[in-house]
Amino acid sequence: MTDKRAVVMLSGGLDSATALAIAKSQGYDCHTISFDYGQRHRAELEAAAKLSKALSASSHKVITIDLQTIGGSALTDTDIDVPEQHQEGIPVTYVPARNTVFLSIALGWAEVLQADAIFLGVNAVDYSGYPDCRPEYIKAFETMANLATKRGVEGDRLYIYAPLMHMTKAEIIQAGIQLGIDYSQTISCYQADASGRACGQCDSCRFRKEGFEQAGVSDPTHYQI
Amino acid sequence: MTDKRAVVMLSGGLDSATALAIAKSQGYDCHTISFDYGQRHRAELEAAAKLSKALSASSHKVITIDLQTIGGSALTDTDIDVPEQHQEGIPVTYVPARNTVFLSIALGWAEVLQADAIFLGVNAVDYSGYPDCRPEYIKAFETMANLATKRGVEGDRLYIYAPLMHMTKAEIIQAGIQLGIDYSQTISCYQADASGRACGQCDSCRFRKEGFEQAGVSDPTHYQI
Repeated sequence: MTDKRAVVMLSGGLDSATALAIAKSQGYDCHTISFDYGQRHRAELEAAAKLSKALSASSHKVITIDLQTIGGSALTDTDIDVPEQHQEGIPVTYVPARNTVFLSIALGWAEVLQADAIFLGVNAVDYSGYPDCRPEYIKAFETMANLATKRGVEGDRLYIYAPLMHMTKAEIIQAGIQLGIDYSQTISCYQADASGRACGQCDSCRFRKEGFEQAGVSDPTHYQI
Repeated sequence: MTDKRAVVMLSGGLDSATALAIAKSQGYDCHTISFDYGQRHRAELEAAAKLSKALSASSHKVITIDLQTIGGSALTDTDIDVPEQHQEGIPVTYVPARNTVFLSIALGWAEVLQADAIFLGVNAVDYSGYPDCRPEYIKAFETMANLATKRGVEGDRLYIYAPLMHMTKAEIIQAGIQLGIDYSQTISCYQADASGRACGQCDSCRFRKEGFEQAGVSDPTHYQI
């Protein structure tokens, strides 16, 4: 058993599954956390629970939080359509402060577990225009986190790791394959159907598809058509 | 009607009610937010809704978030008793990362409302040992928030104001009385009963009681005994 403990944010998608496999490969005892926030793509939550087991996490927690009450995103507000063409600038699928809210809850759990690190699967290369996926954001969150908590006050640093930050989708897929991930278990689509099949059209589907092509790996994704 | 808009975090307690009155007095159009997080003192939530109306906020939102799943505090975990004597160090009533989680959700709402500021009622003088009530923490959160959001990326700064930060409880009460707050509507107790009556024994009750004494204002709190 290892002494190093990490909370890993696991959405059920390709990136966070890879972040979990990387944390494990670095010797962390991993505890996964997922969020039920009224997202359209709820099949992700089932995928996350399965991936947590398949990748040998020590525990898995699902936190319910009502972000629909706030609104403002195509991912939680059913009055806003998910676009099927790439848009310039910050996309309508951006959920206001989502990574900040999720990281904050992960921070609370990390404090209870006395964890050394939080891992998350954001990356800046294919980041799709979300401000809270940039390295300077992650660094600022880490600084804040160490001022916010008992652990920080007592002098033990908590680290926020985003190991995929500078990897392309193809590099992420290659790393995950090396670590034994079965990517058919992951769901990236913004509007997957109830059985978790992908639309093949949204930004997230297109990035993923290109990633498998560029990685030279056959795409195991279950598509609706 | 004013152009300046603020999200104000309103717990139903004395401090946050005063922060709201101060934001109003500075000309902000105020939108209040409260959190239903499995706290023992649920009468606070009813007090918050009433205070929001009494102090003329433009809207009030209650966000449900399950912090009990994380545990680790006497305020959310019924297996941990609320102490009736003051303890040294960080108290068991500390909820891991609570201010960070609440500020993050307020940040999401501020982004949807295109607000200029978030107000919260923390203060460092009577802060009772919570790490996330210190000025350096608030500053670090503000820096992170401006990197996290669409508004920050587009160059409009969001401010996090903690106007009570360096005030004593007596000064807070004096300021609030000047601004017309009826403090009998506020609940500070960690273990208020269902009708909102205070225990008179916990840290929060003791700070409040001393505050009224030092302010030379008669204490309007409804006590259980």
